[in-house]
Amino acid sequence: MKRVFSFGLWTVMNRGADPFGAPTRSPLDPLQVISGLAAHGAQAFELHAEDLIPPGSLLAERDRLIHEARQRMDDAGIRCVACGSDVFSEPIFKDGGLVSNEARVRRLAIARYAAAIDVGHLLGAPLFNIWGGRDGAEVDASRSPIDALKRLRDGFNELAAHIARHGYAMRLSIEPKPNEPRGDLYLSTVGHALAFIATLDQPDRVGVVPELAHAAMAGLNPAHEIAHALYAGKLFGIHLNGQRPLRFDQDLRFGGANLKDSFFVVKLLEDEDWPGPRSFDAHPYRTTDEQGVWDFVQGCISAYKILAEKVRRFNEDLEVHQLLAEIRSWDVSVPPVETAAEGSPRRAFLYDRLDHLVFEILMGTR
Amino acid sequence: MKRVFSFGLWTVMNRGADPFGAPTRSPLDPLQVISGLAAHGAQAFELHAEDLIPPGSLLAERDRLIHEARQRMDDAGIRCVACGSDVFSEPIFKDGGLVSNEARVRRLAIARYAAAIDVGHLLGAPLFNIWGGRDGAEVDASRSPIDALKRLRDGFNELAAHIARHGYAMRLSIEPKPNEPRGDLYLSTVGHALAFIATLDQPDRVGVVPELAHAAMAGLNPAHEIAHALYAGKLFGIHLNGQRPLRFDQDLRFGGANLKDSFFVVKLLEDEDWPGPRSFDAHPYRTTDEQGVWDFVQGCISAYKILAEKVRRFNEDLEVHQLLAEIRSWDVSVPPVETAAEGSPRRAFLYDRLDHLVFEILMGTR
Amino acid sequence: MKRVFSFGLWTVMNRGADPFGAPTRSPLDPLQVISGLAAHGAQAFELHAEDLIPPGSLLAERDRLIHEARQRMDDAGIRCVACGSDVFSEPIFKDGGLVSNEARVRRLAIARYAAAIDVGHLLGAPLFNIWGGRDGAEVDASRSPIDALKRLRDGFNELAAHIARHGYAMRLSIEPKPNEPRGDLYLSTVGHALAFIATLDQPDRVGVVPELAHAAMAGLNPAHEIAHALYAGKLFGIHLNGQRPLRFDQDLRFGGANLKDSFFVVKLLEDEDWPGPRSFDAHPYRTTDEQGVWDFVQGCISAYKILAEKVRRFNEDLEVHQLLAEIRSWDVSVPPVETAAEGSPRRAFLYDRLDHLVFEILMGTR
Amino acid sequence: MKRVFSFGLWTVMNRGADPFGAPTRSPLDPLQVISGLAAHGAQAFELHAEDLIPPGSLLAERDRLIHEARQRMDDAGIRCVACGSDVFSEPIFKDGGLVSNEARVRRLAIARYAAAIDVGHLLGAPLFNIWGGRDGAEVDASRSPIDALKRLRDGFNELAAHIARHGYAMRLSIEPKPNEPRGDLYLSTVGHALAFIATLDQPDRVGVVPELAHAAMAGLNPAHEIAHALYAGKLFGIHLNGQRPLRFDQDLRFGGANLKDSFFVVKLLEDEDWPGPRSFDAHPYRTTDEQGVWDFVQGCISAYKILAEKVRRFNEDLEVHQLLAEIRSWDVSVPPVETAAEGSPRRAFLYDRLDHLVFEILMGTR
Repeated sequence: MKRVFSFGLWTVMNRGADPFGAPTRSPLDPLQVISGLAAHGAQAFELHAEDLIPPGSLLAERDRLIHEARQRMDDAGIRCVACGSDVFSEPIFKDGGLVSNEARVRRLAIARYAAAIDVGHLLGAPLFNIWGGRDGAEVDASRSPIDALKRLRDGFNELAAHIARHGYAMRLSIEPKPNEPRGDLYLSTVGHALAFIATLDQPDRVGVVPELAHAAMAGLNPAHEIAHALYAGKLFGIHLNGQRPLRFDQDLRFGGANLKDSFFVVKLLEDEDWPGPRSFDAHPYRTTDEQGVWDFVQGCISAYKILAEKVRRFNEDLEVHQLLAEIRSWDVSVPPVETAAEGSPRRAFLYDRLDHLVFEILMGTR
Repeated sequence: MKRVFSFGLWTVMNRGADPFGAPTRSPLDPLQVISGLAAHGAQAFELHAEDLIPPGSLLAERDRLIHEARQRMDDAGIRCVACGSDVFSEPIFKDGGLVSNEARVRRLAIARYAAAIDVGHLLGAPLFNIWGGRDGAEVDASRSPIDALKRLRDGFNELAAHIARHGYAMRLSIEPKPNEPRGDLYLSTVGHALAFIATLDQPDRVGVVPELAHAAMAGLNPAHEIAHALYAGKLFGIHLNGQRPLRFDQDLRFGGANLKDSFFVVKLLEDEDWPGPRSFDAHPYRTTDEQGVWDFVQGCISAYKILAEKVRRFNEDLEVHQLLAEIRSWDVSVPPVETAAEGSPRRAFLYDRLDHLVFEILMGTR
Repeated sequence: MKRVFSFGLWTVMNRGADPFGAPTRSPLDPLQVISGLAAHGAQAFELHAEDLIPPGSLLAERDRLIHEARQRMDDAGIRCVACGSDVFSEPIFKDGGLVSNEARVRRLAIARYAAAIDVGHLLGAPLFNIWGGRDGAEVDASRSPIDALKRLRDGFNELAAHIARHGYAMRLSIEPKPNEPRGDLYLSTVGHALAFIATLDQPDRVGVVPELAHAAMAGLNPAHEIAHALYAGKLFGIHLNGQRPLRFDQDLRFGGANLKDSFFVVKLLEDEDWPGPRSFDAHPYRTTDEQGVWDFVQGCISAYKILAEKVRRFNEDLEVHQLLAEIRSWDVSVPPVETAAEGSPRRAFLYDRLDHLVFEILMGTR
Repeated sequence: MKRVFSFGLWTVMNRGADPFGAPTRSPLDPLQVISGLAAHGAQAFELHAEDLIPPGSLLAERDRLIHEARQRMDDAGIRCVACGSDVFSEPIFKDGGLVSNEARVRRLAIARYAAAIDVGHLLGAPLFNIWGGRDGAEVDASRSPIDALKRLRDGFNELAAHIARHGYAMRLSIEPKPNEPRGDLYLSTVGHALAFIATLDQPDRVGVVPELAHAAMAGLNPAHEIAHALYAGKLFGIHLNGQRPLRFDQDLRFGGANLKDSFFVVKLLEDEDWPGPRSFDAHPYRTTDEQGVWDFVQGCISAYKILAEKVRRFNEDLEVHQLLAEIRSWDVSVPPVETAAEGSPRRAFLYDRLDHLVFEILMGTR
C-alpha cells in the first residue's frame, strides 16, 4: 500500500493569529499552496470550500476558481480527499450553524454546507467532512441539548439527502471536538459522533474523522478513539496533529507532542492497513514565516514515516514477539462459565518490560 | 410523579480508604444500611452483589442473605433498583474483567456477572449495571483496543443471552468512565457506550448509566452526556455526585461541587419527566464517622430537592419566560435553502442576562 | 468599608472575536466605556495604555487623550486603579516580550511598558499590572527556561527602577497564567510569581494579581491562590471572572461558572477586609451586542454583591457557628512534642454537614 | 560527574493496591529491597522512615533495624540520599498532618517528622523530604487557607529548629503536589513551595523536590518547574516518573509517558550539571509480580541514560548548533530603551525545524 499524505489547505494558509495576537504571516494563495504541498511531499489535500472560493463569490467566479484548482491539481499530481465548509468564522453563525436558535441561520448553514458539497464534488473529493465549530453552547439555559441533537440530525439528514439527490459519490463525516470555540460542543468525541450517526436517516453514508488533538483535549487515548471508529466501520478520515493536554486547541505539528500516543495511533492505522489518507490538521508556530511553513509540512510527513518505521520494528522485534506470544498463549479455549476456576494461580504480566521495549524502539536504541 | 431517591449500598459502606490512606470507618452491615437508607429518606438502593454476599459464599448462604435482605426491604419499604458486580477489586482481574488477556479470566468475569444477575433478579432489580473498572489498559502494546472492544461485545452478548435464557425482566446498562483505576478505560463516555451498544446482538436490552463525576473527569458537560442518552432512548439510570475537575475520581456528595452543571442535569431530568430513580454514587468525606455518613445521605437528597425546586422557579420566572419566548420567536418556518438571506440583520442574543438569571435563581435572590 | 468595583476597559471593549471567528461587535470608544462603566455601577477601571492611546501615537496625541480621559473620569466620578500594556498582540512580540530571543525586542518591550507606566501615572493609577502573555514557549529547545527567568528578572528590575527614578507612587504586579496564548508561560501561577518576585532588586514594590480563570486552568483552588498572596502580603489586585476547567481561557462573567469557588474567593476577600478594588477581567459572550455588554457589567457586580451577602449569612448562621466553634475547641494548647498521644480517640469531623450548609446558604434555602 | 540513581524504597515495596483494588504483590522486606536496588543498578535510595521501621516500634527495635540497614548499605555499596515520613496513611491524620484542625494531631505530626529526621540522620541521609499528603482540604469552610499556611510555617520552623538543635547536617525539602489524596493541597506546585519557604525562619535550610507527575497533574511544564527551583537555588532533589495528564496520580515508570517533557527535564539537569541524585518515585504496574518490579527498576534507569545520551546528541548536532547559533546572534547588545526601533523587520524563528530536530534526535533517526 502506498501511503497518501494530505494537508488541509487551511493549515498552510494559517496566518498565525491567536486570541491575543494579530497575524504574523502574509496570506498565501490557495493555488500556490496546492502546488507547494505537492512539491513538499503531499499527494493530497483537504479544504474548506472557502479556502479556495471567497464567501459571496458568484457562480462564474466559483467555476473559474475550481477550474484553476483542478488544473493545478493535474499539473502537480495531487488530489482532493476531503472538502468541508467554514460555517464558524462569520458572525451570523455566532449562536450555532446547524443548531442556531434562529431557524433562518440553520437554513443558511445547510445552504452553505450544500454549496460546499457541490464544490467538493467538482474537485473530486470523496468525502465531505463537517466540523461544526459553532454547534455548541456556553449558556445551557438558551437551548435544550436534546433539541440541539435533533437539529443536528435534521441538518445531517438534509445534507445526506442533498448528496443522494445529486447522485454524488461522496460520503459525509463528522469531526468531533469537546469544546472551543464554544464552551461545550454537542458532538464532543468519536463516541458521541458514532452514537449520533446511528440516529440518522442514512447512517451508512456517514462516518467520523477523529482528530488527535481533540481527543487529547478530553484526556482520551487517541488510539482508543480511532479503535472505536474502526470497530464500527466508520473511520472515514483522520486528522493527525499534536496537543499538550490541559490547554486550548493547539494543533501542533505531528510529532510535536504526544509521541507515544502518536506511535499507537500510527500502529493502529498501519496494523489495520487502513487505506485512507494520512491527513494533517495542524499549523506552523506563530513565530515562523513562510520558510517555516514548509518546514512544518515536511516535519509532519517525516514524523509519520519515522513512526511507521517504528511500528515495523516493533512488530519485528524478537523480544516483543516473545512477550506477545506468551500473552497470546493465555488466550486459549477455556471451560464454560460454570467451571471457571477462581483459585487458579495468579499470572504476572510482564508489561513493565513490554512498555519499556516500546520506549526503546521509539528512541531507536533497539 | 413521585421521585425515587436511591443510593448504592457501597456508598454508605465506603470506609474512607484512599490510595494513600487506610480506612477511617468501621464496616457497616449491609442489612443495617438498607434500613438506614430507608430511615434517612431513600426509597431505593443499588448494590454490587458482593456488598451483600461475600465472594465465595455457598448457594445456601447466598439465599439466606437474599432472604434477609428482601425481608429488610419489605420492613423498611425500600426496593432494589439496580444490581452490579464487583469485578474490579480482586487481583485476578488486574488485567481486565471482560477484556483480560487471559481467556479464563474473561470466563470468570462473565461467570461472576451472571451470578450477580441472578442475585439482582432475586432482589427484584429491574437493571443490571456494569461498570467494568478493570476493562482498560496502561500498556497499549499489550492488547489491540479493537480486540478489547470485541471482547467487551462478546461478554455483553453473553450476559444479555443469560438474562434472556432465564426470562428475567431485567435490562443491562453500561456505566462509562474515562480512566481510573486503569490508565484508560475502553468505554470512556456516554457516547462511546451508546456507539458500542449498537454493535451488540440485542441492543434494545442495553442502555447507559451516566455518572456526573465521570463526565466531569473528561471535561464534558454532564447535561450534554445525559441528553445524548435521552435522545437515544437509552437513559436506563443515573449516578449523581460531585467532582472537582482535573482530579482523581472524587465521588463527592451531590451538591458538593459543580453546582451549575448539577442544576442543568436536574433540569433535564425534571423537564423531560424522566421516570427513573435519582441514584447517588458518592461517598462521605474520609474525615467523617458514621454520623457523618447519614449527614451525607441527607445532604445528597436535600441537594436534589433544592435544585429541582430551582428548576421549577426557573421555569416560572417571568423574565426567563420572556427571554425564552423571544428566542423561540426566531424559530419560525423559513424559506427553503435556496433563498436563505445571508444579509439579514445581526441578531443579538441576551444570553448574558439569561445566564445571570440562572445565577440569581440558583442563589435564591429571585 | 465601601467596596470598589472595577472593570478592565478591554473587557467591555472586547469585540467577540475568537480563534475561529471574526468580531461580532462594533468597536466602542474608550471614553464612552469609562462613562458607561460609571453609569452601570463601577467606581473604577483598569486599562491597557493601548486601550486609550493607539500604539504609535505622538506625545501630543497621548496627552490630549489622557486629558480627555481624566476629564471624563472627573465627570463620571470614576478612577483608574491599574494600568498595563498590551505587549502581546503585535507580531513583533511573537517570541516573547521580556523573554524574546531577540535582545532588541526585549528592549522594545521594556520601552513599551515604561511608556505605559508613564500613562498610568498620568491617570493616577496606583498599580501597574503586567500580564506577559507572550512570555512563554512552545519549543523548549529554543531557550533555557532559566534564561527566561533571568530575562524576566532583568526586565522587572528595569521597570521598578523606572518607577523609582521618576518617583511615581506606583507599585508593580504580576498576573500569572499557566498557558495561552503561548503553549507554556513561565510565570504560571501565583506561587511562581511570588517566588520570582523574591529574586528582584526591589521585591517590596512588586506583588501579584491573581485571576480566577487562570487558577482554574491549572486546576488550582482559586481561594488557595489568593491565600498564598495574602499570606505573603502581596495581594495587590484581583481579577474576578469564571472559567469552566479543562478549556481555553474563557473569561466568563463572574458568577457564570465555579460558583462555590467564587464564594470562597469572596469569603476570603471579605473576611480579611482586603481593601483593594474588586476588578473584573471577563468579557460578554460572543453572541451578544452592546446591550448585552452592559448586562454583563451589571451581572458581574450583582454576582459579587450576592456572594458577599452569602458570606455574611454564612458567618452569622447559627449551625455554622456551632460547627466552627466545635472545630476551634480542638485547637487548644497541647503538650510538647514528646508526649503527643498517638492512642487518642479518633475524632469525627462533621464536614459533610458543614459543606452542605455552604450549599444551602449558597442556594438561599437557609 | 558520575550520576547517582536512586529509588524510594516505597516504590519497589508498592504492592499494587489502588482505590478500587486489593494488593496484587506480596510484601517485600526493606532490607532485601536495599540489596535488590543495588543489584539492579541503583547507587542510592530514599525512604519513609516507616518503610524500614514499623510505626510504634520501640527505640531498641528502631536501632536494630537501622543497624541492619546500615550494614546492608555497606555490603551493597548503596547510600541513603533522602528520608521522609509517612504522615498520611493513618486515620489520625485524616484532616491533615501539619494543618489538622486538631492541635494535638499537629503536634503528633511534628513528633513523627522529628522522629523520622532522627532516623534519616542515623542512616546518613543529607535531606529530609516532606510530602504532606494530608495537608489539604475538600471542605474550604472548615479552615482558612491562610491559617493552613501559618500552621505549615510553624511546623516547618519547628522541624528546622529540631535539625539545628541536634546539629544534623541535613536539609529540609518540600515536595509539592496539587491534589490527591486531598481534594486540594496547600503546597501545590514548585512555585508555591518556593514562595512559602521564603516565609520560614531559616529559609536557607529548605528547598524543593519537584516530581514530574505532580507538575503534569497541574498541566505545568515539568522542565519549567525545575527551572524555577534551579533559578532560586533550591533544587534539593527530584522525583522522576511518568504521568498521563488529566488523571489521578499515576506514578508511571520513567519513560512510560511524557517522553518529550522527560527529555527536557533530563536536558536541564545535565546541561546545568545538577549534582543531585536522579531519584525515581514511581511504581510498577499493578499487573506485574516481583519479576516485573525489577524490570521496572531497570526500565527507569535505562530510560534516564537513553535520554541523557539524547541530550548529548542534541548538544552536538550540527544543524541544531547552527540554529541555536543564529538565535544567539540576535541576542546582541542593543541601544537603550529610548531608541528601540518598533519598525525593524520581522524576524522569522525556525522553531518548526528546531522542534522537529528534537523529534528526530529523540527517535534516533539522526
